[in-house]
Amino acid sequence: MASQGFWSLGAENGGDRGDQSPITARAWCQAAAQKFTGGIGSKLCALLNVGEVEKSADGAEKQDTESCNCSTKPCNCSKSHLGFSELYSTDLLPALDGDLKTMTFLQEVVDILLAYIVESFDRSTKVIDFHYPNELLQRNNWELSDEPETLDDILISCRATLKYAIKTAHPRYFNQLSTGLDMVGLAADWLTSTANTNMFTYEVAPVFVLLEYVTLKKMREIIGWENGRGDGIFSPGGAISNMYAMLLARYKMFPEVKEKGMSSVPKLVAFTSENSHFSIKKGAAALGIGTESVICIKADERGKLIPSDLERRIVEAKQKGYVPFFVSATAGTTVYGAFDPLIAISDICKKYNIWMHVDGAWGGSLLMSRKHRWKLNGVERANSMTWNPHKMMAVPLQCSALLVREEGLMQSCNQMQACYLFQQDKHYDLSYDTGDKALQCGRHVDIFKLWLMWRAKGTIGFEAQIDKCLELSEYLYNKIKDREGYEMVFDGKPQHTNVCFWYLPPGLRYMEDKVEKMKRLHKVAPTIKARMMEYGTTMVSYQPQGDKVNFFRMVISNPAATFEDIDFLIEEIERLGQDL
Amino acid sequence: MASQGFWSLGAENGGDRGDQSPITARAWCQAAAQKFTGGIGSKLCALLNVGEVEKSADGAEKQDTESCNCSTKPCNCSKSHLGFSELYSTDLLPALDGDLKTMTFLQEVVDILLAYIVESFDRSTKVIDFHYPNELLQRNNWELSDEPETLDDILISCRATLKYAIKTAHPRYFNQLSTGLDMVGLAADWLTSTANTNMFTYEVAPVFVLLEYVTLKKMREIIGWENGRGDGIFSPGGAISNMYAMLLARYKMFPEVKEKGMSSVPKLVAFTSENSHFSIKKGAAALGIGTESVICIKADERGKLIPSDLERRIVEAKQKGYVPFFVSATAGTTVYGAFDPLIAISDICKKYNIWMHVDGAWGGSLLMSRKHRWKLNGVERANSMTWNPHKMMAVPLQCSALLVREEGLMQSCNQMQACYLFQQDKHYDLSYDTGDKALQCGRHVDIFKLWLMWRAKGTIGFEAQIDKCLELSEYLYNKIKDREGYEMVFDGKPQHTNVCFWYLPPGLRYMEDKVEKMKRLHKVAPTIKARMMEYGTTMVSYQPQGDKVNFFRMVISNPAATFEDIDFLIEEIERLGQDL
Repeated sequence: MASQGFWSLGAENGGDRGDQSPITARAWCQAAAQKFTGGIGSKLCALLNVGEVEKSADGAEKQDTESCNCSTKPCNCSKSHLGFSELYSTDLLPALDGDLKTMTFLQEVVDILLAYIVESFDRSTKVIDFHYPNELLQRNNWELSDEPETLDDILISCRATLKYAIKTAHPRYFNQLSTGLDMVGLAADWLTSTANTNMFTYEVAPVFVLLEYVTLKKMREIIGWENGRGDGIFSPGGAISNMYAMLLARYKMFPEVKEKGMSSVPKLVAFTSENSHFSIKKGAAALGIGTESVICIKADERGKLIPSDLERRIVEAKQKGYVPFFVSATAGTTVYGAFDPLIAISDICKKYNIWMHVDGAWGGSLLMSRKHRWKLNGVERANSMTWNPHKMMAVPLQCSALLVREEGLMQSCNQMQACYLFQQDKHYDLSYDTGDKALQCGRHVDIFKLWLMWRAKGTIGFEAQIDKCLELSEYLYNKIKDREGYEMVFDGKPQHTNVCFWYLPPGLRYMEDKVEKMKRLHKVAPTIKARMMEYGTTMVSYQPQGDKVNFFRMVISNPAATFEDIDFLIEEIERLGQDL
Repeated sequence: MASQGFWSLGAENGGDRGDQSPITARAWCQAAAQKFTGGIGSKLCALLNVGEVEKSADGAEKQDTESCNCSTKPCNCSKSHLGFSELYSTDLLPALDGDLKTMTFLQEVVDILLAYIVESFDRSTKVIDFHYPNELLQRNNWELSDEPETLDDILISCRATLKYAIKTAHPRYFNQLSTGLDMVGLAADWLTSTANTNMFTYEVAPVFVLLEYVTLKKMREIIGWENGRGDGIFSPGGAISNMYAMLLARYKMFPEVKEKGMSSVPKLVAFTSENSHFSIKKGAAALGIGTESVICIKADERGKLIPSDLERRIVEAKQKGYVPFFVSATAGTTVYGAFDPLIAISDICKKYNIWMHVDGAWGGSLLMSRKHRWKLNGVERANSMTWNPHKMMAVPLQCSALLVREEGLMQSCNQMQACYLFQQDKHYDLSYDTGDKALQCGRHVDIFKLWLMWRAKGTIGFEAQIDKCLELSEYLYNKIKDREGYEMVFDGKPQHTNVCFWYLPPGLRYMEDKVEKMKRLHKVAPTIKARMMEYGTTMVSYQPQGDKVNFFRMVISNPAATFEDIDFLIEEIERLGQDL
């Protein structure tokens, strides 16, 4: 034997498949029985058929416990032998003797997850083990059948799932606006799953409802609304948060729309930058407003909405007899990371009495940084704001907040007063039953991971994390702006972490035929991206925009990324693209 | 020392607060280093500053590892000492030497969760340690501050959160349609959190996208759609699934509504039972249709929609020049658990060319039971169906599916073709990028817990679980239908697990003054419920309906419940209510 410690014994019986870990189970539960005082401790002792264990640190009634000392593993101790290949989910809790098996099974899953986590942060591992859909379908049996599988098979499925997953925690994963994996956030999400409850009433989620209240108030204070007053909700993503804002704006202007629908109101029009997120149009389509009633305002070369164009289009719409009801300014556009000029926009909204929404799904988190929050100056004048902590603050997915300045509006806009859920004769303060202001009925607990991370980092911890990402993006910008083979999509230092650029392989750099050059350049980013995924070394996004052919959009929200990872990205693009 | 095993050593240093567990960390990581072959194993060895450990089970290069044998705990081994009271989240991964600390921290959290889980299933523990909102706010410091807290404080927050949480896994928790905690589902949810990705593209969620495809197809086969063809999506809850259905129905009849909005279409009307879920009206309000355009159809005394009334109201609406576009039948109403007659409804929908939706959020899972699925006969004729596995199948929250018969409709209804997310020149089959058919942009991974549970139980396992819940509710019904002091809200055996009844305390049973009797009876259920929560012994829902005063609505979806728990509920109602 190489070492003492009972985990090593488990390792001999099945290696990292972990399908048999008899000693692990027994010894782990013995220990657990000692850690957990009271009922559970005694219960575990009984399960293990061992002697009375020490009750607490106070030293009372200490007796020896019996343990398995067999030299042959797996041994035949009836209580300690847990072969997952012979057990099924029906052997776990709530089965009568399910405690020990459950704890052992869950511990086994946790071991798989911990290994995956450590591996994910290791730069020598792949970001992705890529396979084409048809191939991936064939590499494993993913089908559902009538018959149950053993717990051993379940563990194998867990491993297979992770084997082909994207390592979103990997320091070189830059593909989306949401990257990275926060350890406290993860712990909080595990706890949330374990608590397995629903946000609609205080009755079933007392702590989480209070934490949502505390956190939304804090976020409103940071926006700059007086004493943090106002309203808000955590919703399943920025698109839904934006849709809420549009719904509230419409209701605020025409409350009769709730009962009578759009046929009772004049033709409404909304305004947003041509570079805004597609969810504004999606929301308009869903709400019966129609995508044609979303008027796209011109953006400047940096991607910021041009206020004079906004005012011109508002006037134009009014002249046609339309009613402008909603302006969605973007704080941090998806591709360029541009911040619309909020003060100028708010002046226009005030002048024409239009609801001002700020879509800060991506850029809103910059409010946490004393260095960068000026980019959102004017946000305190908005009527509502979308802010996704799951993006730039790296809270696990999903965590999106809609903040609303006016109190009570969400409730009157959305409430249906279902008496089977929001009973009016409950014995506690009903203002904590927040479910009726939501579009959803059941609502997932998205608050705890943000709250716990905030406690762990403090506001200054989030600030440091955000500042670092912006520093990295400036480093990238400085590195490539004059480098041979690179061309920036727009001039000047990025405002957010978005760095947009073309990489021109040597063969394209001096090509005279502009049409052919663009045609070929359009294919460069997709090809490099496909190769990145096949090698599994890094992932970064690309897209065309307007008349611009495909370019890379590098974004940094991953707290694990370092200067060296930026260097690596550049080297990798050049390695994979030089022959194109 | 009472026993060997390193957990016990940790227990002496801080007891169940677990703020110091030096040996645990060290020994646990040593063992982990041996379990995980390859890079991580070596890395952990390096962290621990121990010798080369055995690489695998194949026996090559086994050397002894060094371990901590100090007799005084905590010892002073520099590498093994991990005091969470001096560590912060910044010490965890991606910190340079964060591996060991991270694994120890997460393991500590898991210990807290495992203890909570075992406790939750223990009938001798409380379902809830109830406190009024203001009191709960004061019992702990829940505030967010600028400064970070130590990992020790974070663990304390985790414990406090669980202390005041509802134990939704408790065998006597009957409060909602979603109860219980499935161990495989929980494991799957922990894995989902760890994978921390987004459903919108195959690129970032290859496995989960395939599993959604496989599972939706299976669900459509069970509905009875030919070869499982059709479409669908997992959405954040039944209310959103129902809203999707209404959106699709409108688009199917008037595709121009997407661009031109409701002003381009005639006045639309939708139909649903007066007992249907409030989300139908909520959806109509949001979509710009208006709640007044949702026509409520009469239900019979058992809560089932009356088809003749539906047809009458359709004809009436058409005569007024309105366009009927959507009928939502309910399979399992929220309060009575009634199943609308789907065949008769589908005949009417076919006759008048109206989209037929089935809201089976609650009752849809009965399709998994050969004994009970006849209650949904006719569902195969529907155009769409909502089915929430997080209710009757006890999948962790949230897990709601919308199934759609027509292929391609969701995509054309909702797509906005954002080129920065759904690039058309990717190197794989783009039909797996399902994000553009959703209303959401980012979408949480809700599929894995259902898929893994299905693998673990098989279809027959879900069937057994559902059949058992229905058997329990029949037991409850039989027990109270003729019992003194009970009155059933409707006659006859329940169709679902909903048992609706009044409990009349002795003082009310023979009261002559009917008005006074009803007035007092109206207060009985709320008072008993408040007492249940204060004692923490059980939780069950109540509500009034129409002209009926408050009655209990018992529902059983909790796989942990037994006949004894039903007996207990009755005894508890009588104990807490006899003096009223």
